Amino acid sequence: MKNSSIIAVDAMGGDKGPPVTIKAILAFLNEYSDVRIVFIGSKEACGLFSHACSCPSIRARAEVVACSVQVDDSEKPTVSLRNKRESSMAKAIELVATGNAHACVSAGNTGTMMSFGMKILKPLPGITRPAICALLPTLNRSTLALDLGANLECSAEQLHQFARLGALTAQCLYKIDYPSVTLLNIGLEPIKGSTLIREAAERISQDETINYCGFIEPNQMFLGNADVIVCDGFSGNIALKTSEGVAEMIAESYQRMYDKNWISRLGAFFFRRLTSSLNKTINPAYHNGAFFVGLEGIMIKSHGAAGVNSFGKALVTARQVVDQNIFQALKSNLITQGAIATRSKV
Amino acid sequence: MKNSSIIAVDAMGGDKGPPVTIKAILAFLNEYSDVRIVFIGSKEACGLFSHACSCPSIRARAEVVACSVQVDDSEKPTVSLRNKRESSMAKAIELVATGNAHACVSAGNTGTMMSFGMKILKPLPGITRPAICALLPTLNRSTLALDLGANLECSAEQLHQFARLGALTAQCLYKIDYPSVTLLNIGLEPIKGSTLIREAAERISQDETINYCGFIEPNQMFLGNADVIVCDGFSGNIALKTSEGVAEMIAESYQRMYDKNWISRLGAFFFRRLTSSLNKTINPAYHNGAFFVGLEGIMIKSHGAAGVNSFGKALVTARQVVDQNIFQALKSNLITQGAIATRSKV
Repeated sequence: MKNSSIIAVDAMGGDKGPPVTIKAILAFLNEYSDVRIVFIGSKEACGLFSHACSCPSIRARAEVVACSVQVDDSEKPTVSLRNKRESSMAKAIELVATGNAHACVSAGNTGTMMSFGMKILKPLPGITRPAICALLPTLNRSTLALDLGANLECSAEQLHQFARLGALTAQCLYKIDYPSVTLLNIGLEPIKGSTLIREAAERISQDETINYCGFIEPNQMFLGNADVIVCDGFSGNIALKTSEGVAEMIAESYQRMYDKNWISRLGAFFFRRLTSSLNKTINPAYHNGAFFVGLEGIMIKSHGAAGVNSFGKALVTARQVVDQNIFQALKSNLITQGAIATRSKV
Repeated sequence: MKNSSIIAVDAMGGDKGPPVTIKAILAFLNEYSDVRIVFIGSKEACGLFSHACSCPSIRARAEVVACSVQVDDSEKPTVSLRNKRESSMAKAIELVATGNAHACVSAGNTGTMMSFGMKILKPLPGITRPAICALLPTLNRSTLALDLGANLECSAEQLHQFARLGALTAQCLYKIDYPSVTLLNIGLEPIKGSTLIREAAERISQDETINYCGFIEPNQMFLGNADVIVCDGFSGNIALKTSEGVAEMIAESYQRMYDKNWISRLGAFFFRRLTSSLNKTINPAYHNGAFFVGLEGIMIKSHGAAGVNSFGKALVTARQVVDQNIFQALKSNLITQGAIATRSKV
C-alpha cells in the first residue's frame, strides 16, 4: 500500500489566514483519503482547526503544531529571515527539510518564502536561485512557465538555470524526452530585447541538453505551442497577473452583457453555465498553486488573496507534485546531467 | 473652416506592407473627408496607390512620395539610423519635423522608429527619452499606459519623466486637472519590487505636479481605477501583449464552445454577434495605434502584424491626436511646468 503524502500547511499565510486555510484543509482531507496534514498556526487557529476536525477519519490524518510567531507580509524578507525562524511559514518548511513532510504550502509573502527556502531547504546542486513555476492554461494544453516571481532581477546564467530546471520539470510532468523550451521576449527576431535576454538566449541555445526553440512573445504564450517558457521573475509575474486581470475583465464584461437586453438574457439562459465553466478552465487565477523548483524539497506557493477553493487548489497541487515524484526525478536528472555551469559550452 | 490634418504614412512598414497599408489608407480617406495623406513608399507601391485612387475627391487629398530604401525589421536600429535616412519611415518622420505633416504613422520596427524620432524630431525640453503610450480598454473606461516598448531598460529618472508625460497627456485627453498616476509593480506594498522601481516611486511621490497613487498590480490594470499607469518598456510590452494573447485565447475558446453541443449552438444563435462585438471592445489588439510622447512632433506606431482594419485604427488614432491638439497642449504644459529635473524635489 502506498504511503500517505504528508503536507505541512502554513495556516497563517495569505490575506485571509485561518478562516480560509482551515476550511480548505478540511475539504481537502475530506476529498483525498490518501493525504495527511500538519497544520501549523497560532494557538487559537490550532484550537479552531482541532474543533472543526469532528470526523474521526479526518482527525486521524491531521496533526497540529502551534507557534506564536507569524510572518508579516509587509516586512522585508531579510528581516523575517532573521527574526521569524519560529513562524508558521518557517516551521512548515523545516518539516520538509527534516523529512517529516513531503511538501509544504503557504500563501505568505513570496520573498520571505524564497529566503526561508534557500536557508532551510538549500538549493539543488548547481542551482544559484530557485524559481517559481506554474502550469499556465492555453488553448491546447498547459505550458510550464518559470520564474513567476521569486527572482525580480536575473542574470543570463540564472535564466539559463531556469531553462534547465524547466526542461527537467517538463520531462517529469509531461513524460516527454526533449521538451521545447522558449524564452519570453518582446519580439521574435534575434536582435529584439535587452542585452541580458540576448545573452541568455545565446547561453541556452548552446546547451545541448535543452531543446531551445527561440524567443516567444507574450501573445503567443496561450497558444500552447511551447512546453516551457522561461522568464525573469518580474516579467513572469507581470504576465501572470495581467492574464488574470484580463480574464477577470472579460468574465465581468460577459456577466454585464447577460443583463443587457432580452436577446442576451435568452442567450444567457442557455449559456451562463458554460461561460462560467469556461472561465474556470481558462482563467489563470483558478490554477492556484505555483511550486518552487531548484530547492532540496517541495514548496508550494498559493496566491496571497486565495479564497477557500483557490487555497484548496494549492493543496491539490502539492499532492500532485508529491505523487508524481517530480522532485525526486528532477533532482536525479540534475545530478545525472552534472552541474549546469560545467555542461554549458558558453 | 478648419484646416485638414495631414498625415504622413510609411506605406512599407509592418509584416504585410503595401497590400495592407494601401487598402487601409483608401478606406480612411473615404471615411474622413477632413484629412490629407502623404503616401511614402517604393516606386511600385506609389504606382499601385495612385492607380487605386480612382475617386477624384480622394485623389485630391493624397500625395505620393517615392523612395527606394526601406527599413529592414531584422536590422539593428543603430544600423538603420546610419544607412536608412532615405527610407519611407525616415521620410515620414521628416515631413513632421519640417511641418509638412501633422503626424506620421508607421508599422515598422519600434526601435528604429524611436531612433529616427530622437534624431529627426528631437525630444521635448527636459525629456531624455520619449515613451510609447496607448489607451488600454478596462471595465469602466480607458487607461493611459506608458512606456509600452520604446525603452526596454529604464532608470528611475526616466520612469519619473514618463509619469510626468503620462499625467500631462491624460490631462489633455481626459480634460481633468489632476489625473491619478500609478506605477506598475508586482505588489502593492512599498517593499515590493526591485530597488529601481522603489526609487522611481520615491521620486514620483515627491513631485508635486503629479497625483501619485502608488503601485498598481497588473491584475488591477483592467479595472479602470487609474488614469495613468507608468512602467518600463519591457514590462509594459509584456503586459500589453499578454493581455492581447489572453483575450484571443478566450475569444477562440468561445468560438470552440459554440459548436460543442445543441445547447451551446442555441445559445450562440442569440449570442455570437454580442460576443464578437464584446471581443472588439475589450481585446487590446483591436485598439491599434500607440503614440510616442516626449518628442517634438507626433509619431503613431501601428502593430507590425496589423491587418487592414487594424492599420486603419492607427490612422484614426493619428487623426484624433492631431485634432485634439494633444501634442501642443502637452508641450506648452511641459514648458510651463519647467524641466522635470528642476521641478522634482528629489
